[in-house]
Amino acid sequence: MCVIIPEIDIYVRYCETDASGHVNNVSYFIYLEEARTRFFQAIGLSKEKRGNVKFVVASAKCDFLAQAYSFQTLTVTTRVSRIGTKSFTLEHTIKDAETGKIIASGSAVIVCFNFQRQQSENIPLPFRVALEKVLVSV
Amino acid sequence: MCVIIPEIDIYVRYCETDASGHVNNVSYFIYLEEARTRFFQAIGLSKEKRGNVKFVVASAKCDFLAQAYSFQTLTVTTRVSRIGTKSFTLEHTIKDAETGKIIASGSAVIVCFNFQRQQSENIPLPFRVALEKVLVSV
Amino acid sequence: MCVIIPEIDIYVRYCETDASGHVNNVSYFIYLEEARTRFFQAIGLSKEKRGNVKFVVASAKCDFLAQAYSFQTLTVTTRVSRIGTKSFTLEHTIKDAETGKIIASGSAVIVCFNFQRQQSENIPLPFRVALEKVLVSV
Amino acid sequence: MCVIIPEIDIYVRYCETDASGHVNNVSYFIYLEEARTRFFQAIGLSKEKRGNVKFVVASAKCDFLAQAYSFQTLTVTTRVSRIGTKSFTLEHTIKDAETGKIIASGSAVIVCFNFQRQQSENIPLPFRVALEKVLVSV
Repeated sequence: MCVIIPEIDIYVRYCETDASGHVNNVSYFIYLEEARTRFFQAIGLSKEKRGNVKFVVASAKCDFLAQAYSFQTLTVTTRVSRIGTKSFTLEHTIKDAETGKIIASGSAVIVCFNFQRQQSENIPLPFRVALEKVLVSV
Repeated sequence: MCVIIPEIDIYVRYCETDASGHVNNVSYFIYLEEARTRFFQAIGLSKEKRGNVKFVVASAKCDFLAQAYSFQTLTVTTRVSRIGTKSFTLEHTIKDAETGKIIASGSAVIVCFNFQRQQSENIPLPFRVALEKVLVSV
Repeated sequence: MCVIIPEIDIYVRYCETDASGHVNNVSYFIYLEEARTRFFQAIGLSKEKRGNVKFVVASAKCDFLAQAYSFQTLTVTTRVSRIGTKSFTLEHTIKDAETGKIIASGSAVIVCFNFQRQQSENIPLPFRVALEKVLVSV
Repeated sequence: MCVIIPEIDIYVRYCETDASGHVNNVSYFIYLEEARTRFFQAIGLSKEKRGNVKFVVASAKCDFLAQAYSFQTLTVTTRVSRIGTKSFTLEHTIKDAETGKIIASGSAVIVCFNFQRQQSENIPLPFRVALEKVLVSV
């Protein structure tokens, strides 16, 4: 069985750098968010699959391993590393698109949340099935 | 009659600078937005005064006159320069808090918008009265 | 003679929206900056063409004509509308990539700036030639 | 011996919220950065104390425990939890300024970095002394 690892390319904007001349640490969390939402779209996160449930970030982390610079193209990969009852974990690697050099690695714990009830809920079954298809077995 | 010119102080964050070593042009629009929302709070923009009407930015402009740097304190002043039927215009000056040197000057046209009906509406009367009190007569 | 109008596609990130449910006004200036830097790359803004001269934004403006939403694809076009001695003006249109509906129109005055001398300078000749090739005659 | 726990107040800007109606996860990392740089200023991070050494974020993490909203005032506390040879760790708590309710807790590993040599360096002694004064003994 083939494992899909969605991958996106990101253009580093000038406003995402800082006075140190490199990409600011906050910007990486912007990239992780884009990778996450595009990943959800890639695995078919339709209104049908998630019902009234939305995703809320419970925790986000990023390790900064090398510097990135304006106008550089970064490749961000996303994989599912854990699927729980109400939450799941995504892991990301940010690489230079040209050389493949690893720039950063990040992760996020996502909780299914019902904004009407203002409480967490089980991962909707159709979405769980979609997630399981891309779960990386270690 | 005394004219109130609300004024706020802003701390320049490191992530608001860019690789040119100074504050990025986009960051100034963040400062203008903060000045605007604090101005609305200062003149008493309560739920009662605006009803279902919200504010939408129809146009924003900023002239960058001098550079600003991280950790600098900026003072942003706000004044009302025009009150129309459904919209009004705010003008802002951004100065170095210590020296008073002008860094930038900006403006924004704000439209009263009803998100339920998805259309513009007249400025609610109680809010118009509050705006008129701070209208700068030229 | 053919006129090049560089055009880029932008994916609206979730963090670029605000609690009104639409793209925040500040985010459009991020899009204009990306369009601007990609435009410079498209017309061949190499180190050779600009020497020690860098670009500084002297003024930026955006008119917001319709709302945009997260995950939407926006097309931003860039054209040169004025070439002066030390500065030039770019104009941009932001459209929905699918329907072509105009979302916003913006402009920026760019000044050639020598950071070593901390003063404005003439547009370097090779870069002026590149700009003139894409100047839109009205 | 008295332990200084620097604390700052942050006004939540409208552009820091997202279409879920609450503060976007990325914005918390902006707050952590502001807390960090203000903390450095509070403990007297002068040019003399750090020489050619600058700080680079090696890792950042945030756990999101409750939602925050636009125009809310947040209090961010900072404490030193670890001092190594070339790096140290800061921990932050983000609370609602009025009720004291915990909104988020974050941390960052900071590495001393020499941009001229492009390599990490020992924490400069005068800065280490300043850090030790605020190290929280557990």
